[in-house]
Amino acid sequence: MGHGRTLEYPKTAVNKVNRYNVRATYDLEQIHGIINDSTVVHVSFNTPDPSNPFPVTLPMVGVVASFEHPSSSLGEPLDIYLHGYVSSRLMNLSRNAGTTTSGTDDSAPTGLPVTVSATKVDGLILTLTPNTHDVNYRSATLFGYASLVTDLAEKLWAMEQITNSVVRDRWRFTRIPPDGAEMQSTSILRVRVAGGSGKIRLGGPRDEQKDLVREELRDSIWTGVIPVYEHFGEPVPGKGNRVKDVPSHVAEFAKERREGNERYATEAIVDTSQD
Amino acid sequence: MGHGRTLEYPKTAVNKVNRYNVRATYDLEQIHGIINDSTVVHVSFNTPDPSNPFPVTLPMVGVVASFEHPSSSLGEPLDIYLHGYVSSRLMNLSRNAGTTTSGTDDSAPTGLPVTVSATKVDGLILTLTPNTHDVNYRSATLFGYASLVTDLAEKLWAMEQITNSVVRDRWRFTRIPPDGAEMQSTSILRVRVAGGSGKIRLGGPRDEQKDLVREELRDSIWTGVIPVYEHFGEPVPGKGNRVKDVPSHVAEFAKERREGNERYATEAIVDTSQD
Repeated sequence: MGHGRTLEYPKTAVNKVNRYNVRATYDLEQIHGIINDSTVVHVSFNTPDPSNPFPVTLPMVGVVASFEHPSSSLGEPLDIYLHGYVSSRLMNLSRNAGTTTSGTDDSAPTGLPVTVSATKVDGLILTLTPNTHDVNYRSATLFGYASLVTDLAEKLWAMEQITNSVVRDRWRFTRIPPDGAEMQSTSILRVRVAGGSGKIRLGGPRDEQKDLVREELRDSIWTGVIPVYEHFGEPVPGKGNRVKDVPSHVAEFAKERREGNERYATEAIVDTSQD
Repeated sequence: MGHGRTLEYPKTAVNKVNRYNVRATYDLEQIHGIINDSTVVHVSFNTPDPSNPFPVTLPMVGVVASFEHPSSSLGEPLDIYLHGYVSSRLMNLSRNAGTTTSGTDDSAPTGLPVTVSATKVDGLILTLTPNTHDVNYRSATLFGYASLVTDLAEKLWAMEQITNSVVRDRWRFTRIPPDGAEMQSTSILRVRVAGGSGKIRLGGPRDEQKDLVREELRDSIWTGVIPVYEHFGEPVPGKGNRVKDVPSHVAEFAKERREGNERYATEAIVDTSQD
């Protein structure tokens, strides 16, 4: 996965990854890529209610991107833009935690502390004994401070990024721009990322020597991998659709995601970087 | 989704779902089913470090089940069993938060407060304008108190549940039981569930009247759904495998999950319960 010089999130007590048999990554490009490959991410935060000890976790649509530096690559420092609804608790908490506008000094953390996570399962690893069974997966966690986006230009830009993060290039093929009511009813959160980490498991079954030397086990227990990947099916026209052919920005996107996900899960099995 | 009388998690300030266009569910069977259909779940919790305001979120393998009442159905009150590693922060925090053994009075909450979440994306909804774009999905959140399982019988039972939650019925086809070293090196967390909720979005595109009356939009913008589902591919033998044929418990599991997931995503589009 070498791309020359790469940026990494600093290792701290907060994001340090400790897990056997799994490669930790602090590489921005890998971590951001996992988030952007995930249609839905989980956003966790604490409520101000002292009687509630449980983090709240909400599924949201999110994308990592930079409004200040829109041409940034995935390997550069980026914000997370999240789409939610005005009435939700997260939006209200973020509003109360203070709004920042583009250009605010982001060395001073304002906003609601949130943790954004995404995991993609790539395969089920079947071995001789339950303890060595495993899962091929990619997981990313970013944490930072969430604020409501109030600047109209940034909000419009973020809505485009979020739409296109779900279906690439979709925005310009729809009725745009959103009207005044739509701009007002839509809330966008920007998360100033403070750090992050990822975990990646690749490869096939890894049995222990004590089991591998037992012929009767090896002759009777099947070992291998069930590849798992997100399948993007053939687009299905809606009831009200009048456009006869599926446009290429939809059909090709579904095909590329389908083939790309299958390819990753297949190649993940034969990866030998950890063997 | 009627199954006669069903149990529901109580609606409280902690789990109340507020989201436009999405059906909230408090039905135990639906919520537990989403967790058990997910190979990996996200577990969020807070660290005792007061300088860290961010919840920690870890990907883990989890299953909802009851050791005290192993024949319980998915619609009954259940615990969550999570598999992790001894060295991880979560295990240490749970150990420090106190261990409970089976039979402990669970009216007194002991253990680490955790939130367990899982989301499955079922389809991308493409409409006339960005604001009405949406995602078909199923999401479940359960919260409760996590403790390390110390009772050996419960631990062995939980290891079997967890193994079989990844690949149905796999446990009895492997080298079992785990030996003493394996029992010791494996940590299992039990979460006493205190509450939960789910969100489900079903159906096709839902455009607004103001756009539907504009002929030029309807004649030029394709609307519909890209079905999305987790594909379980053909099992691939590992390098060390000596068993010629893929056993039926593996092949049939992969086939059933593949077909079941595709069926759900396809039927989700035509569901009209919210239209």
